[in-house]
Amino acid sequence: MHAQTSQANRLRATEFFEELQDIVCAKLDELDANEHFREDAWSHGDGGGGRTRILHDGAIFEKAGVNTSVVTGELSEALARRMNVPAQPFHATGISLVIHPLSQKVPAVRANFRYPELGNNDAWFGGGSDLTPWYLFDEDARHFHSVWKLACDRHDPEYYPKFKKWCDEYFFLKHRGEARGVGGIFFDYLPGDFEILFSFVRACGHSILESYVPIVERRRHLPWGDQERRWQLSRRGRHVELNLIYDRGTLFGLETRGRVESILVSLPPVAHWDYDFKPDPGSPEDRLLQVLRSPRGWTS
Amino acid sequence: MHAQTSQANRLRATEFFEELQDIVCAKLDELDANEHFREDAWSHGDGGGGRTRILHDGAIFEKAGVNTSVVTGELSEALARRMNVPAQPFHATGISLVIHPLSQKVPAVRANFRYPELGNNDAWFGGGSDLTPWYLFDEDARHFHSVWKLACDRHDPEYYPKFKKWCDEYFFLKHRGEARGVGGIFFDYLPGDFEILFSFVRACGHSILESYVPIVERRRHLPWGDQERRWQLSRRGRHVELNLIYDRGTLFGLETRGRVESILVSLPPVAHWDYDFKPDPGSPEDRLLQVLRSPRGWTS
Repeated sequence: MHAQTSQANRLRATEFFEELQDIVCAKLDELDANEHFREDAWSHGDGGGGRTRILHDGAIFEKAGVNTSVVTGELSEALARRMNVPAQPFHATGISLVIHPLSQKVPAVRANFRYPELGNNDAWFGGGSDLTPWYLFDEDARHFHSVWKLACDRHDPEYYPKFKKWCDEYFFLKHRGEARGVGGIFFDYLPGDFEILFSFVRACGHSILESYVPIVERRRHLPWGDQERRWQLSRRGRHVELNLIYDRGTLFGLETRGRVESILVSLPPVAHWDYDFKPDPGSPEDRLLQVLRSPRGWTS
Repeated sequence: MHAQTSQANRLRATEFFEELQDIVCAKLDELDANEHFREDAWSHGDGGGGRTRILHDGAIFEKAGVNTSVVTGELSEALARRMNVPAQPFHATGISLVIHPLSQKVPAVRANFRYPELGNNDAWFGGGSDLTPWYLFDEDARHFHSVWKLACDRHDPEYYPKFKKWCDEYFFLKHRGEARGVGGIFFDYLPGDFEILFSFVRACGHSILESYVPIVERRRHLPWGDQERRWQLSRRGRHVELNLIYDRGTLFGLETRGRVESILVSLPPVAHWDYDFKPDPGSPEDRLLQVLRSPRGWTS
């Protein structure tokens, strides 16, 4: 690819991610009456920077982070080996969102879309979004998946089944034999024409609010108490385990010396590890576990 | 090594670790009037088992785990490659202890001693102990290090300086540029005669209580409040980061399909991730951070 085209594509991707960040934050701000996002704009000595937006202790959102970043650097030998490419300069622009609601009836959500380039030769899109309920309403999982399926189907009917499976595999805690949540879509190294892919990723970006906001509105007023809170905090421990042990995005960010506080915004505000905590058989908590142990389909 | 000698050594190491577990738990039970250890004895279908002892919500100890285990299995290809040995059967017996006190003035402590064998050919000792204060009393760090230095010096004057440095390097959060705590000793692949090494490891085992109990007794009645608790929970987030991102013992256990709840007993009961939380300059919290950023000596 010509250096000039590459630079233009990178700029367009960056502009889209920043615009999406504005749209998403404005909507979440509107939903949560108590607190609003504050922004930390940061820049790195060795290239790149970002806009970290964070909302803490809201009425609905206990912690929400919506970040964009543009990072330029050199792949380390170890990282390049793991990615199966020679060590070389890299460039990456992306948006990353994570929402940890206070209510245990409103699920957590994560979304990330990125456009990495290696040297001047290789560039691709990656990303996806997945839902992590603590109390499972099948209707919510179906809504979430149907929005992502629609976004996929409009571009390629093979996308959704492939990306749904990829997501189930990626957000799986092998040591626990459990999925983190009810999944969504995940894709990486998506090859093809920039214009076609970019149009798919733009559609994905605009599906973030559509896949999640109706669920928030439906569940936000449901009651909860100490037992529900305890279950949520224990499940959030699983969230931490997945992010720190398995998530390539997190580990890539830390290894390439990204801004630690922006990368680890994804971690929940509070998490518990109670020894061998098990829900009562037949309880709603137990039912969630059964579903997490054998990921299933949510669209017909 | 003859199979018979190997089996005898393994048995003696296991017996020592279990005896040490009894001694340590009895002393901690005596210190904490509110709660006592309960035991989960477990065994694995494919060889091995252990005694997991756990104390929750004590007056002094918010969560303490003292585990012994004997594990037999097959090294995976990936793990063997990382250890620089061919894939082969392995056997490991060990004790592992972690204490998360409730009071922020009483530091957390971790200790682990193990005797792994590969095939019938190669066996060694590994282990160590380190201290993680949230409020730093220099006197405590000096006491802790002086006990471990003495245990080392009696066996080899080169041990302490080498193992102290190894510990500082091992329990370091590279992405944060911070040590987890004030260190202690760490060693692995210790070569040499079984009898000599075993006698060193026995001395180490008996240093666990001596290095820690006087600190608990000195600090347990100091007052604390919400601000101290917040700092402790934020530092415990670092504890989680270290264990899940860097700790080879934890990752080895999870990859070799050890008992998850026993391995992750090391995680704190509660941890916080507050975005970009920084202590006030000149505060005791800030002073701790300064020390963690440049590990120093604690013996003269």
